[in-house]
Amino acid sequence: MLTTIHQAKPLVHCMTNYVVANFTANGLLAIGASPVMADEVEEVADMVSIAGALLLNIGTVNTRTAKAMLVAGKKANECGVPVVLDPVGVGATPYRKSVVMEILDQVKINVLRCNEGELASIYGVSWDSRGVDSGEGDMDTIEAAKEVARKYQCIVVVTGEVDFITDGQEVTHVHGGNILATRVTGTGCLLSAICAAVLAASKQPMLELATTLKQYKQASEQSGEELGAFQINFINALQKMAEGHQ
Amino acid sequence: MLTTIHQAKPLVHCMTNYVVANFTANGLLAIGASPVMADEVEEVADMVSIAGALLLNIGTVNTRTAKAMLVAGKKANECGVPVVLDPVGVGATPYRKSVVMEILDQVKINVLRCNEGELASIYGVSWDSRGVDSGEGDMDTIEAAKEVARKYQCIVVVTGEVDFITDGQEVTHVHGGNILATRVTGTGCLLSAICAAVLAASKQPMLELATTLKQYKQASEQSGEELGAFQINFINALQKMAEGHQ
Amino acid sequence: MLTTIHQAKPLVHCMTNYVVANFTANGLLAIGASPVMADEVEEVADMVSIAGALLLNIGTVNTRTAKAMLVAGKKANECGVPVVLDPVGVGATPYRKSVVMEILDQVKINVLRCNEGELASIYGVSWDSRGVDSGEGDMDTIEAAKEVARKYQCIVVVTGEVDFITDGQEVTHVHGGNILATRVTGTGCLLSAICAAVLAASKQPMLELATTLKQYKQASEQSGEELGAFQINFINALQKMAEGHQ
Repeated sequence: MLTTIHQAKPLVHCMTNYVVANFTANGLLAIGASPVMADEVEEVADMVSIAGALLLNIGTVNTRTAKAMLVAGKKANECGVPVVLDPVGVGATPYRKSVVMEILDQVKINVLRCNEGELASIYGVSWDSRGVDSGEGDMDTIEAAKEVARKYQCIVVVTGEVDFITDGQEVTHVHGGNILATRVTGTGCLLSAICAAVLAASKQPMLELATTLKQYKQASEQSGEELGAFQINFINALQKMAEGHQ
Repeated sequence: MLTTIHQAKPLVHCMTNYVVANFTANGLLAIGASPVMADEVEEVADMVSIAGALLLNIGTVNTRTAKAMLVAGKKANECGVPVVLDPVGVGATPYRKSVVMEILDQVKINVLRCNEGELASIYGVSWDSRGVDSGEGDMDTIEAAKEVARKYQCIVVVTGEVDFITDGQEVTHVHGGNILATRVTGTGCLLSAICAAVLAASKQPMLELATTLKQYKQASEQSGEELGAFQINFINALQKMAEGHQ
Repeated sequence: MLTTIHQAKPLVHCMTNYVVANFTANGLLAIGASPVMADEVEEVADMVSIAGALLLNIGTVNTRTAKAMLVAGKKANECGVPVVLDPVGVGATPYRKSVVMEILDQVKINVLRCNEGELASIYGVSWDSRGVDSGEGDMDTIEAAKEVARKYQCIVVVTGEVDFITDGQEVTHVHGGNILATRVTGTGCLLSAICAAVLAASKQPMLELATTLKQYKQASEQSGEELGAFQINFINALQKMAEGHQ
């Protein structure tokens, strides 16, 4: 799938948090996509209308950028630009929950990319989510994801030790990965951005997102055992895959 | 000390600048802590109340985030969550000085982590601080730090060629380090975040912060002589220490 | 030229986007300059008045920071502090165009550092600029740059496969470089910051900026063929040049 992105070179409008903005931009560039970050309410409608996809990531959202996300999301819907929502740490505070629910209420999203704890919050079950990490709780995760997918008519991608993807009917599991990916900030956020790039270039989202999840896990497997160099190795692995070298 | 953090895995609420947010998150993850960045005034009280410690770093503060820092700091005090203040470049502009003095006035901080120039500004002596670098001036630094520690009833950590820590009575010096640490942005900021993680996991802050300062200097000593790779080596060194491999 | 910066150690006030702030700070530190990031309207006038140069980069500008850029730019003019403008993606949205034109209208800039697509937007010709990438169009680029340089009485630096610099009369071309530099975010933004450092330390801007462009291309040539490690190699190459090791 990454080779398709590399050929299509989609422009991905990222409204994301300042912690991972650099890594996200470099990850998108590595697979041949073209990232643009813009969060000013006066320009986001114009920016998204020339983009191939929109990413909404609430990692460091504030009242100003939340408003801009709604404007961008609605404009994306008008223009037929696909939207990926990454509800970072949605269970951590009532404010994050309200921002995410407002987006889900006013914007038709194409993909929800989250971890188990974030899914639990959106699904509405109690969960010990501990900041922006996934945490622990009691939920039939597959059923929850399917129900959320049906409710919001979107594809739900839940990442963790085993990833899975569902459109509310079918479920595909993706195994593999590297524990180091949980020790580097932004690997989930970058995946959400890459899902946006996939949607911009894809004709069969369910199939191609599943392939992308598999490639993403393979890239992390190829990124070694050393925390410090993980990002570098990971960028290299993504680039090689996108350029069809492996 | 870093091994204790690795076991406790504290959630550290970082209100920090966008220059170093990524490095700070990755540094905290390397030692096994769990970083969360959030600066929206509507959510910071909720976020800090589930955190193990709060970091206030004014590196790119603005009127919106300054207000949020006060809200978070006061809530941290209510909840017994320890607070670390990093007064980045406080001497550079009257605005920074006013933000820092307002925090010190309204929030009980546990640790002030600064360089000599920043200490001089808070202590109230003239200093040539040159942006966010330490600069030069004429001050009995130890006496100044002790007086500031007593005045604000906090621990003061002053970093430089030789670090020292004081609670207003005792003073511990920490030698070592690597000059390259001054040529990479965010090493001071990350140390402040790690001090917050220490407070979240510590029973004897003075002792354990001193140990942490020593480990931090050792990590920089193990990070080689090449500027480009310093961050990578440093992350690796921190991880190894936290995991007890050295 | 980079050795001159290394000796002068100018303080560069960077008002830049959050995607590249970290890389910009580390790149400036690598050449021995001292970066400070500050974008709060209440402090930028004070900050710029102690700086050697000011960088205005609109990559993730918003209404708050646009206002602060005008305040900082005007104060820089008052104090004789040179100003570099990087009009990131100016052609992508009417909002970006209005911000840039307002800066050009109210602030005397010393250097405009842009790509061909951004130049086209400022020059006023139609261009397919595709987000923040340069894109394609039909324009006599040299003539456009000369006219813009004359109109705003500034030096124009246009980077691409071949860079060139003009003061409206003379034109110098700079060859070389590494295609990987276009696959890593922030290489253009960092160059703008380094141009600011050059102005702070320079007596002959046209000549010394041209030398700097050449050195920047040489540094990228020395940064290998591997995307992941490009930034590290590039920082090392800049440092070595600034320290006169090559």
